[in-house]
Amino acid sequence: MRTTAELELPVSLDRTGAVPLHAQLADALRAAVRHHHLAPGAPLPSSRRLADQLGLSRATVTTAYEQLLGEGFLQARHGSGTRVSEHLRALPSPGPGRVPAALPAPRGTAVAGVVVDLRPGQPDTARLVDAAWRSAWRAASGAAVPDRVPPPLGLPALRFEVAAHLRAARGLDADPADVVVTAGTGDGLALVVHALTALRGRPLRVAVEDPGYPSSLRCLRRLGAEVLPVHVDDDGLLVDRLPARRGELDAVLVTPSHQYPWGGVLPLERRAALLARAQEAGALVLEDDYDGEFRYGSAPLPALAGLGPQHVVHAGTFSKVLSPWLRAGYLLAPPHLRGALADVRRDLGEPVGGQAQQALAHFLAGGGLRRHVARVRRDQAHRRAHLQQLLSEHPHLRARGAAAGLHVVVELPRGTDAAAVLAAVAGRGYELADLAEYAVARTDLPPAVVLGYGAATQAQLRGAVAALAGAARP
Amino acid sequence: MRTTAELELPVSLDRTGAVPLHAQLADALRAAVRHHHLAPGAPLPSSRRLADQLGLSRATVTTAYEQLLGEGFLQARHGSGTRVSEHLRALPSPGPGRVPAALPAPRGTAVAGVVVDLRPGQPDTARLVDAAWRSAWRAASGAAVPDRVPPPLGLPALRFEVAAHLRAARGLDADPADVVVTAGTGDGLALVVHALTALRGRPLRVAVEDPGYPSSLRCLRRLGAEVLPVHVDDDGLLVDRLPARRGELDAVLVTPSHQYPWGGVLPLERRAALLARAQEAGALVLEDDYDGEFRYGSAPLPALAGLGPQHVVHAGTFSKVLSPWLRAGYLLAPPHLRGALADVRRDLGEPVGGQAQQALAHFLAGGGLRRHVARVRRDQAHRRAHLQQLLSEHPHLRARGAAAGLHVVVELPRGTDAAAVLAAVAGRGYELADLAEYAVARTDLPPAVVLGYGAATQAQLRGAVAALAGAARP
Repeated sequence: MRTTAELELPVSLDRTGAVPLHAQLADALRAAVRHHHLAPGAPLPSSRRLADQLGLSRATVTTAYEQLLGEGFLQARHGSGTRVSEHLRALPSPGPGRVPAALPAPRGTAVAGVVVDLRPGQPDTARLVDAAWRSAWRAASGAAVPDRVPPPLGLPALRFEVAAHLRAARGLDADPADVVVTAGTGDGLALVVHALTALRGRPLRVAVEDPGYPSSLRCLRRLGAEVLPVHVDDDGLLVDRLPARRGELDAVLVTPSHQYPWGGVLPLERRAALLARAQEAGALVLEDDYDGEFRYGSAPLPALAGLGPQHVVHAGTFSKVLSPWLRAGYLLAPPHLRGALADVRRDLGEPVGGQAQQALAHFLAGGGLRRHVARVRRDQAHRRAHLQQLLSEHPHLRARGAAAGLHVVVELPRGTDAAAVLAAVAGRGYELADLAEYAVARTDLPPAVVLGYGAATQAQLRGAVAALAGAARP
Repeated sequence: MRTTAELELPVSLDRTGAVPLHAQLADALRAAVRHHHLAPGAPLPSSRRLADQLGLSRATVTTAYEQLLGEGFLQARHGSGTRVSEHLRALPSPGPGRVPAALPAPRGTAVAGVVVDLRPGQPDTARLVDAAWRSAWRAASGAAVPDRVPPPLGLPALRFEVAAHLRAARGLDADPADVVVTAGTGDGLALVVHALTALRGRPLRVAVEDPGYPSSLRCLRRLGAEVLPVHVDDDGLLVDRLPARRGELDAVLVTPSHQYPWGGVLPLERRAALLARAQEAGALVLEDDYDGEFRYGSAPLPALAGLGPQHVVHAGTFSKVLSPWLRAGYLLAPPHLRGALADVRRDLGEPVGGQAQQALAHFLAGGGLRRHVARVRRDQAHRRAHLQQLLSEHPHLRARGAAAGLHVVVELPRGTDAAAVLAAVAGRGYELADLAEYAVARTDLPPAVVLGYGAATQAQLRGAVAALAGAARP
């Protein structure tokens, strides 16, 4: 049987573009399957062979194959290698005139090799699929399927488990009745903004951290909120710069356990001041606890919501402890918001599927999450220690915010052009983020890059730090 | 070992309230587990025994048990009956002061027996969990979990399968690139409204059917749209009443394949007029094809989107062909909207989890959906024929809209008080909907009830029709 290695596959890769090579390769293979260049059941060449043929690293090909395996386009069988899924046999042909535009032709100088994405946001999922994970999903997907929508605030069993998790992991006196299941932090933020907008009867004024999380900012603006950027320093939000008068502020969005992206942990006195200020102004505090499970060294501060449960909505996510692939998270909200939150869900729909909620409830109830977090936290502590050690060998690179989370900010020598440094580092095969991308309104940020190590290998960290140190030499 | 039959369970049921008895019982059992009245591993009495003890029908107890099994609160083992889940052992105690208020005490006269919910919206899921379903989920949940968010418009494999489904089942020349995965029709509607609002730069004016789907109305209003109700008749939307001038209308939301709830199938000439009118006004047509897969007798009209693919967004859902429990659906949208739709997803988040998307892609690719729809369509045709036969025995009941879908409108004799009839029917144990609940602005609707038969047994249909015929006797 012919394999793709012997076929003329329409794979042309843009080695200078913004799309990672593995994604381009996956696109090309998907198109080949769709347009019957590759038949259902056809064997694919080994990753090594395709890598040689296309002048790519083997990791790039492996990543593309894994993506397509996950999507069901490919199947892997022990001993017989990777094939185009047999399931695709049943499909009608897409018909003529439906062939999408070919991938862009290569431009610029070709750089052979993979681009390693070390922008923040990726957790380590390598060890997630274990017996407990499979058993949780089996229980969820083998059960009879109810004939109705899941309850608007989420499945009681999952809300119960999340409350137990918050009590154990985040020191919160959580009642299951105050837990709301979300499709992740963005969904949770949108839910609160909708509910609060309805309660106030007008668009909201929301204070955000500067620098901060660009997605939250876009979410707030999309929902009609006015955004008030407030500077952060090494310890997090400069609380005394918040508006204090009643009516000037409806909500404050903060990341107290690990300021995103700057890395500070909001000290207790600022937490108290924040709650007092919010109460004065009649504002709700939205605590985005995106990676609160990852703390190293010092004892963690409990979540902010524990200090003022009537004024704080605590937003957590399974994106960092499990994977953003799940689209699942939760809110812990004061009881006075419950009705307004349920109304939003009834109007706009409950987004989180019942099967995923059942699987998560099983996984948490059986201790799978607790064990996975413990395992991953150890791995992440090793990565972090390794990265800090690598950075410490370069006195012109200054790491910040490594006490928690899955990323560090690396400050570059004063006067360095961070964009030029990032371009040079990308030329060596590593994609990092520019701190300036996270600025809301301020223009006084030092030149710095953000490096996410959550899914990185030691070799990748070594390579990235060497490339960064070289490019940023003063 | 003691079972709940010998325990003093705090189960007090309100037999006259709005909450179905099975839901009240499930709540009470959940609370008993949570507050350690029932320990993990404790056996529960048989459904027959608990039914006797509480004066409930056995079906009520079975429904409550099934709900709790689905949520993971209970476990069932062959031969050893139903028990409280062992998984709950690991949980910390909720602590004192956390006991929620008891269920309300019974009031009014107690009516022993179950209330059968025959309001529209429930599909038949009894035969859904088969080998293909389990295999699809096993493939999805056993695969390596990617460390990122699914693509903003959905997994390519699922978009590909949905396009194939739309070509085969709805006669649409669908390109996978134009498919957007949604968390159901509400999410799809919100997505389009956000995208169109951004493109127009102002709140939208959206025409809706009167009577129509109350959830869509609430969704539109929640997102700031102005709603223009337009009357429907036996054939669906009165297209010539739509505003025709440019700027007067941004979108029209219609259910052409089976007007919801009135039941008309929009004739071809009105479809053509609708598209012409929308084009004149510069408006987008939103085709809510909520049950387009269920047509009986006459050949189905292909979806409206086939007539004007540049002006129509076709919204489909897996809620009726599989279950609303899934929270999954799709849009087929004109290419000119693709960028705006993806922008909304990037800002507000992709709600549909990767595992569910993978499982659906597998299920569709393997032919599982096609086989399930064929099977369920046969069952539904039987239910519908049985229901029509039952109704035909009562000349004072006039059925409408039975050519498609999973519900009928039953018109009552002129001058009947529909609310009083519904109350009498509820007293006989059957919950139906009042057509008046679906009115947007009109007050001229005839007295009528809406009866959903999607998940009903023949005995339930017989009982409900007898109760209705008796209560509505002129």
